[in-house]
Amino acid sequence: MTNQKYIGVFDSGVGGLSILSRLVKDFPGEAFVYLGDTARLPYGTKSKDTIKNYVLKNINYLSENYPLKAVVVACNSASSVLSELDLPIETLGVIEAGTDSALSKTKTNHIGLWATRATVSSKAYEKEILSLEPDAEITAISCPTLVTLVEETGSKHPLLKAAFDHYLDQLFKTKNKEKELDTLILGCTHFPFFKKELQTHLKEKNITLSLVDASEEISIQLKNLLGDKVSNNTEEQKLGHTILVTDEAPHFKDFIKRSLPEDFKFSFAKIDL
Amino acid sequence: MTNQKYIGVFDSGVGGLSILSRLVKDFPGEAFVYLGDTARLPYGTKSKDTIKNYVLKNINYLSENYPLKAVVVACNSASSVLSELDLPIETLGVIEAGTDSALSKTKTNHIGLWATRATVSSKAYEKEILSLEPDAEITAISCPTLVTLVEETGSKHPLLKAAFDHYLDQLFKTKNKEKELDTLILGCTHFPFFKKELQTHLKEKNITLSLVDASEEISIQLKNLLGDKVSNNTEEQKLGHTILVTDEAPHFKDFIKRSLPEDFKFSFAKIDL
Repeated sequence: MTNQKYIGVFDSGVGGLSILSRLVKDFPGEAFVYLGDTARLPYGTKSKDTIKNYVLKNINYLSENYPLKAVVVACNSASSVLSELDLPIETLGVIEAGTDSALSKTKTNHIGLWATRATVSSKAYEKEILSLEPDAEITAISCPTLVTLVEETGSKHPLLKAAFDHYLDQLFKTKNKEKELDTLILGCTHFPFFKKELQTHLKEKNITLSLVDASEEISIQLKNLLGDKVSNNTEEQKLGHTILVTDEAPHFKDFIKRSLPEDFKFSFAKIDL
Repeated sequence: MTNQKYIGVFDSGVGGLSILSRLVKDFPGEAFVYLGDTARLPYGTKSKDTIKNYVLKNINYLSENYPLKAVVVACNSASSVLSELDLPIETLGVIEAGTDSALSKTKTNHIGLWATRATVSSKAYEKEILSLEPDAEITAISCPTLVTLVEETGSKHPLLKAAFDHYLDQLFKTKNKEKELDTLILGCTHFPFFKKELQTHLKEKNITLSLVDASEEISIQLKNLLGDKVSNNTEEQKLGHTILVTDEAPHFKDFIKRSLPEDFKFSFAKIDL
C-alpha cells in the first residue's frame, strides 16, 4: 500500500482545528495532516501579497513532504487568495463552502458577513456569492476584536456580549439596502466557537438570523471534490494523523487539547518555515 | 562627514511610532531609521524562541544596512528577550525605561502592568523592577483585547470603556497583596494612544493611579546611553529619516500618517525579511 495519501488542512493558526475536528468525524477512513502557521498569524491583518507569499510557502511545504489527496484551506484570509495562486495540489477553500451554505439558507438574498479585515477587503465572499447569485446583496463587517476575544478565553469572555452588540449594530445600520438581511456568515475560523452564545444572544434581542458555519458545508464539498478517492476503510489511517505548527507557544497546545476529541491520536511537531 | 550615523528604532509593528515621534522631538539633530516588522506582528502572542529569532533577524538587518549609534527597541515583547541575545549593536529596551519611570512614581511599591501575553509571561518587568527594588510587588495582567481595539480604531472604540473596566477589575481583584497598587505601567506601545481616555475614565471611577508611559522616560535613557555621541547640530539629519516595514497593508500607512508630526519628512520602503 504505497498509494496511501493524506488530506491536508491548512490554517494560519489553530482556529482551523474546528474544521479538522469536523472532518475527522465525517471521514473516519482518512489520515489528516494539519499545518498551522502560528509563527505568522494572524493573516487577517496582513496585505494580500504577504498572504499569497505565506500560503504558497505553506502549501508547497505540505505537498513536498506529504503525499496528498487535497488540501482544505481553513483560513478565510488564505482562502481569499487561492484563485490567484499556482498551487501544486487541489485545494478547497472555506469561502466556497460558506457561500454555498449561505445561499441555501437565505430567503431574502441579503447576506451578512463577519470576518477579519483582510477577508473583508479581499471581497472574496462578494465575488463568490455574486458569481452564483447576481441578485444578492452583501453587508460585510470586519470584526478583529471578536478574533482576539476568542483567542483570549474561548467563548467565555465577559466582553463578548458587548462585542456582539457592537458588530450587530454595524451590520444593521446600513439602512439603504432594499432587502432585509436574514443570514450571517461566520467568516473566520474562530467564530464557530461562539456560535451557541451568539444564537442565545440573538434570541434575547429578538433578532432572526440564520448563522452559517462553513465547517458544516466543507465536508460535503470535500466529498464532491474527492469523489471515488474517498477512503472507506481504515487502511489510510495507518499513516496516522499529524499536527504541525510553525511556532509552539504554550497557549496553542491548550487550544489544540480543547478543540479535538479526547481519543484523537496524532503526532505533533514544530517546523521551521 | 562619513561618520554620520542613524539612531535605529525597532518595533514589531507601527505602535512604536509613538516612541519615534517623541524621540524626533527630543533629538532634533539626529537621523532616525525605523523598522516595523509588520509581516510578523504581533509578537505578543508568539513563543519566546520565535520572538528571539525575529528580533535577531531585524536588528541584524538594521546594523548591516545602516551605520548606527544605537537601537531603541520599542516593542515590549521584543525588549523582554534582549538580555538573552548576542546583538551587534547597543540596544535600549522600553522595559528598562518603563521600570525606571514606575519606580520614580510609586509611593507604595506596588506596581501594576498591562501588557501582551508574551510580555507578561516573560516576567521581564518583574525581573527588572525587583533587581532595582527587591521590596516591590507587581500585579501583571495580559490585555490582548486592548491591543486589538487600538488597532481597530485608535482611542475611539465604543468597547474601550468596557475593556478598561474589565482589565481594571483583573488588576484590583488580587486582594492578597499587602500594599495598595498606585502605579500602572502601560506596557505595550499601543497603550499610550488611549492614555487620555484612561485618565478620564479613572477620574470618573474615582480611582487614583499614576500611569507610566515609557516614551516619556526613554528619551532620558537614550541621552544617557549616547553620552557625547548625541548630535547637537543638524549635520546628521542630512542622512534623512527612513521608515521600513516588512509588510505594507493599507491601514499601516494611515497609522503612520496619524502618528507622526505633519512636517516629518522620511523615505519609506517595504523590505523582504
